[in-house]
Amino acid sequence: MTYQLHQGVGHPVPGIRLASTAAGIRYTDRDDLCLLELATTGQVAAVFTQNRFCAAPVVVAQQHLAADTARYLLINAGNANAGTGAAGEQVARDSCALVAEQVGCRSEQVLPFSTGVIGEDLPLAPLCAAVPTLCANLTEDVWASAAASIMTTDTRLKLCSCTLEIAGRPVTITGMAKGSGMIHPNMATLLAYIATDAQIAQPVLQQMLQTAVVQSFNAISVDGDTSTNDACVLLASGASGIQIVPDTEAAARMQAALNVLSRDLAYQVVQDGEGATKCVTIRVEEAANEREARLVAEAIAGSPLVKTALFASDPNWGRILAAVGRAPVARLDIQALRIWLDQVCIVSAGGRDPGYTEQAGQQVLCQDAFTIRVALCQGVASTELLTCDLSYDYIRINADYRS
Amino acid sequence: MTYQLHQGVGHPVPGIRLASTAAGIRYTDRDDLCLLELATTGQVAAVFTQNRFCAAPVVVAQQHLAADTARYLLINAGNANAGTGAAGEQVARDSCALVAEQVGCRSEQVLPFSTGVIGEDLPLAPLCAAVPTLCANLTEDVWASAAASIMTTDTRLKLCSCTLEIAGRPVTITGMAKGSGMIHPNMATLLAYIATDAQIAQPVLQQMLQTAVVQSFNAISVDGDTSTNDACVLLASGASGIQIVPDTEAAARMQAALNVLSRDLAYQVVQDGEGATKCVTIRVEEAANEREARLVAEAIAGSPLVKTALFASDPNWGRILAAVGRAPVARLDIQALRIWLDQVCIVSAGGRDPGYTEQAGQQVLCQDAFTIRVALCQGVASTELLTCDLSYDYIRINADYRS
Repeated sequence: MTYQLHQGVGHPVPGIRLASTAAGIRYTDRDDLCLLELATTGQVAAVFTQNRFCAAPVVVAQQHLAADTARYLLINAGNANAGTGAAGEQVARDSCALVAEQVGCRSEQVLPFSTGVIGEDLPLAPLCAAVPTLCANLTEDVWASAAASIMTTDTRLKLCSCTLEIAGRPVTITGMAKGSGMIHPNMATLLAYIATDAQIAQPVLQQMLQTAVVQSFNAISVDGDTSTNDACVLLASGASGIQIVPDTEAAARMQAALNVLSRDLAYQVVQDGEGATKCVTIRVEEAANEREARLVAEAIAGSPLVKTALFASDPNWGRILAAVGRAPVARLDIQALRIWLDQVCIVSAGGRDPGYTEQAGQQVLCQDAFTIRVALCQGVASTELLTCDLSYDYIRINADYRS
Repeated sequence: MTYQLHQGVGHPVPGIRLASTAAGIRYTDRDDLCLLELATTGQVAAVFTQNRFCAAPVVVAQQHLAADTARYLLINAGNANAGTGAAGEQVARDSCALVAEQVGCRSEQVLPFSTGVIGEDLPLAPLCAAVPTLCANLTEDVWASAAASIMTTDTRLKLCSCTLEIAGRPVTITGMAKGSGMIHPNMATLLAYIATDAQIAQPVLQQMLQTAVVQSFNAISVDGDTSTNDACVLLASGASGIQIVPDTEAAARMQAALNVLSRDLAYQVVQDGEGATKCVTIRVEEAANEREARLVAEAIAGSPLVKTALFASDPNWGRILAAVGRAPVARLDIQALRIWLDQVCIVSAGGRDPGYTEQAGQQVLCQDAFTIRVALCQGVASTELLTCDLSYDYIRINADYRS
C-alpha cells in the first residue's frame, strides 16, 4: 500500500484547527477541554455508542448532526454528563451555544462530547470561563496536547498520522483517541477523532468511517462493558483540494489508509487497557459464518478466567477451551476444533495436542503481544478481536476512580 | 413453611454413607477424594454443565446414568480431568471400575465427578491406592469432612440441612457444595450433592431437582464463566419409608424445603466467590417477560465496572445504568425505569433521582449484603440473580491458581 503510517504522531491537517485548555471541570492540573474546528468546506461523519442509556452530549450531538453541518467539536474530560436527565441535555446545548456565540456560527454547528464519571452534573460555569480562551487559541499543530486533554484513566495519549499521495499530491490523515476501560465492540466505547484534508462527500465519508470502525474500534474488548458516551468522528476538511470519488483506486487507497490508522489507534487503546500488561489478538477461523466467529472470539475475550491466566502468563489452555465451549453458537465440534498460541498448537481432538509442551505455551504467553487462534472446522468465515489481560491494576483503577 | 433450616450443618441422612481420604492427586495435606453411597432402595437425579466442552467424568456420568441405577458417587478435587480426550474418559471409567470391584456392584452404578485444573491428565494410581480405604470407611455422619474434601479454591465448606415432618414422621435433607469461581447460570458450574431419606420415584426426583436448581444454582453469577465439569445430584435413599407422591401437600412441602436448602447452598457459594467481599442480589421487576428480566440482571451481574464499584462501596449508579443500557432486550425505556439500592431510589426519569443523596447510597453499599433493584416499567415479570463484587483477590486467586 502506498501510504506511510506515523505512529504516536499527530501531523497537522490543513483545514483543521484545535485548542485545549484547563477548564477545571474535574482535574485541576491539566487541560480537560478541547475544541476542534473544521474548515467551512468540510464534511463530518460520526458513529455513536449503541448503549440505550445515551449520555446527554450523544443525544444533542445526534440532533445537531441531523439539523445542520457541524463545524466545531467541543470535548470535555472528567465528567460524562450522563444520567443527568433534561438538565444535562440543557448543559450540553448551552455549551454549544457558548462556542457558537464566540465563533459566530449556529449552535447546531457545534457537537458536544463528554467523557468521565457518569451521573454527576456537568457545571456550565467552568465552560463559560474557558470557551473564549479555546476559541482564541485555535491552531493547526497541537494534536498532541489536544489528545492529552481528552484523557481520563488513559496513561498515555493516543495519536497516529498517515500520509499518502493521491494524483501526485499529498493527503494527510491524523487521528487521536481516548479510552482504556469500558472498551467493547458496539460501539467504540471511546472517543476518537480522525481528520483528513481530502475532500469527501458526506455519504461517502460516513460509509468510509463505518467500514473503518467495524475492523478497528468495534473489534476490541477490554472489559466487556460499553459506555454511554462514546463516539467516533471523521472530519474531511477538503483543504487539499483533492476529491475522493467512490469506487476509484484513490478511494480504495484512502479507505486502506483510514483502516490502518483506525486499527493503530484501536491497538493503542487496548495496549493502554486499564491495568493491561498484554495485548492479545483473538483470531477465530473456519467458522460457519462471521457472526459465529465473533461469538466465539467474544466468549474468549470476555472470560475473566482466561484474562487472569493471560496476566499470569499461565498457558492454562483449558480455560480457553472452556470459554469456547460456552460460546452461544449453533454448531461446535469440540473434537474437531484446534487452538494455537501463536504457532504452538495446544488443543486438538478434544484435548491437549500431543506435540504440546507447557514450556512452549509459556514462552508465547510471556510476550507482550501474541495471538490465540481457534480453528472451528465448520466453514471458511473468520474474525479478529483485540483484547488484553485482567490484572490487579484493573481493580485498583476502577475501584478508586471516584475516590 | 413447616421445615427447619440448619445452615452450615450436615445432619446424617439415613440410607446415605460417605467417606473421604487424602489420595494425594494434587494436594498433599488434605482429603481430596470422596465417596457417597446410596442405599439399594434409592433413586438418583442429576443435572450437568451446559458447556459444550464437557469434562470426561461428565460424559461418563451421563452414560452411566442412562445405563443403570447409580449407587456410588466418586468425587476428586484438584484435577478436573477435562480436555484430556479419550484417555481421560478411560481414567474416569477405570475409577468407577475400582469402586465397583471393591463394593461389588456394576461399574455403571458408579458416577465419577472431578473438579480442579483443566487439561492435565488425572493419574489412576492414587485412586487405586485410595479407593479401598474409602470403601472401608463409609459411614453416615461425616458430611462436614466430605464437604471439605471436594473443595478447590473454596475458603470454607458449604453445608446445609433441612428437617421437616411428613405424616408425623421426620424427613431429612442434607446438601454439600463446592465452587467459588466459574459460577454462572447454566448450569451450576459447581458441584452440589443433596440427599434425603424420603422415597421418591426417579422422574419426580428429577423434576424436583430441576425446579430447585433454576432458582438457586442457576441464579448465581461470580465471574460469568461456566465450567466444564459441574453437576448437581439429588439422592433419595427412601430409608425413612416416607413416600413423596406428586401433586400432594407433602410434595409441595418437600419441594419448598429443597428450594430453600438449594438457595442457601447457592448463597454460600456466592459468599465464598473468589475474592468476594459482598453478596449482592440483583432483582429485576416489571419486565416484559422473564427472559428479558434475566438478560438485564445478567448485564448488571456481568459488568466488571459495576463489580469493582461494589468492591469499593462506591454508589456509582451510572455504571449500573450503563450496564442496563447494554442489555440485549427488545424494549428498554431509560426515562421510565427506576433503580434502587435496597430502599434508596437512585435513578428515575433517566437520571439521578431527585431525593437521592450519595450518603444514602454509600450506606447501602457498605453492607456485606444488599439488593440492586431495577423496575423496567414494561410488564409484570421479575427475576433475581445473586452475585458478588470483583476484588484484588479474584485476580490473585485466578492468576496464581496453577503456580
